Amino acid sequence: MSETSSARQLVPWQATVLTIFPEMFPGPLAVSVTGQALAAGTWRLDCVNIREFGIGRHRQVDDTPSGGGAGMVMRADVLGLAIDAALTSSPDLPRIYLSPRGKPLTQDRAKALAHGPGVLLLAGRFEGVDQRVIDARDLEEISIGDYVLSGGELAAMVLIDACVRLLPGVLGGETSLAEESFEAGGLEYPQYTKPRIWEDRTIPDVLLSGNHKRVEEWRRTEAERLTRERRPDLLKRDL
Amino acid sequence: MSETSSARQLVPWQATVLTIFPEMFPGPLAVSVTGQALAAGTWRLDCVNIREFGIGRHRQVDDTPSGGGAGMVMRADVLGLAIDAALTSSPDLPRIYLSPRGKPLTQDRAKALAHGPGVLLLAGRFEGVDQRVIDARDLEEISIGDYVLSGGELAAMVLIDACVRLLPGVLGGETSLAEESFEAGGLEYPQYTKPRIWEDRTIPDVLLSGNHKRVEEWRRTEAERLTRERRPDLLKRDL
Repeated sequence: MSETSSARQLVPWQATVLTIFPEMFPGPLAVSVTGQALAAGTWRLDCVNIREFGIGRHRQVDDTPSGGGAGMVMRADVLGLAIDAALTSSPDLPRIYLSPRGKPLTQDRAKALAHGPGVLLLAGRFEGVDQRVIDARDLEEISIGDYVLSGGELAAMVLIDACVRLLPGVLGGETSLAEESFEAGGLEYPQYTKPRIWEDRTIPDVLLSGNHKRVEEWRRTEAERLTRERRPDLLKRDL
Repeated sequence: MSETSSARQLVPWQATVLTIFPEMFPGPLAVSVTGQALAAGTWRLDCVNIREFGIGRHRQVDDTPSGGGAGMVMRADVLGLAIDAALTSSPDLPRIYLSPRGKPLTQDRAKALAHGPGVLLLAGRFEGVDQRVIDARDLEEISIGDYVLSGGELAAMVLIDACVRLLPGVLGGETSLAEESFEAGGLEYPQYTKPRIWEDRTIPDVLLSGNHKRVEEWRRTEAERLTRERRPDLLKRDL
């Protein structure tokens, strides 16, 4: 544990996930740095099982789409009850519905959410959720990328992981955060480590020079080159 | 199970994941549609524990970054051995390193990967992996979004989920795939379901009209409006 652990906030960062598959959680989030931080009380995870608010003996949570079409849509009344139940204990959490129609998640957004009290995340399934509950409960739609998943649960885990690792004390050294991708507006420079020669491939001389200033320069130049080659859109965003 | 199940390929789609946390898998992928497809043999999951190829009594997999800096970098020699071991049983899989420096994953790419034999995924940890193993083993870097995670494992799960749900027979109705976000180049229209009135909010009349053509028109218009409002970049990409 590093010194930064002592900077941990007194109130844990709160992640509340609404899902019909609570058994998926914490899952991968229980392992490694996020798992250690969960055990240490740096953040807290609560799952609300949407099915408990389902209708009738079968606890139905979905129904056929109005206007026809394939698949099922999660009902506004059921989700409304589940969200309201979650909000009684955490009324001030930002309310997020994970959806490919949402605003793309960025590192800046993860940082802003990590600085706040936590997140209330609705993980949808099937064809999506009734638009009225998005409107009535003022859910912000956030997307983790331009692809479709079988449900919002993995997206919720991704958003939680991106935030939790930024909480004070979770990662060892604060400096490693400052140099990673997106922190400086672009991609990270290439990394090398021992051995010095591997399969006839060498580490760039400058990294072994011991000249701190030249190393810094090389890294900045390489980061810029990679960003220009691979993600010119990130450069434009900065200007 | 739908009729499309009978269209399942004879050879399972292969996901091989290299990780130091194999205990994370299958995790959320064992649940719901991906879990059912895994149990049915539509896809196969193998994890390679990178630590088994680690160095010395402590099975070390990482070392300090050449040129200095915070954190640790995964060693090229260790990863090279792990990748080569995985390739002996599946030499023809596309080799992907999940990294925020990579090409952004898209629905089209997920579709292309789902049509292939599977994926070999390297899930990194720490500050990343030695650049030489990326070069020497010709790993393609793919990113699931513009944010940083504590490791590549969740990104691997996201990529696998995005692919597996597209395999024949995994989802109930093929038509539901055709109408979701990104399939038509933009975002999906809003969905509604019963009840007809909820908290004084009604379902748009057209969806209850029974006029199939008007419903189609409304959905197309709404999808275009949402895409224009939220993701004009997706429209530009089409032109």
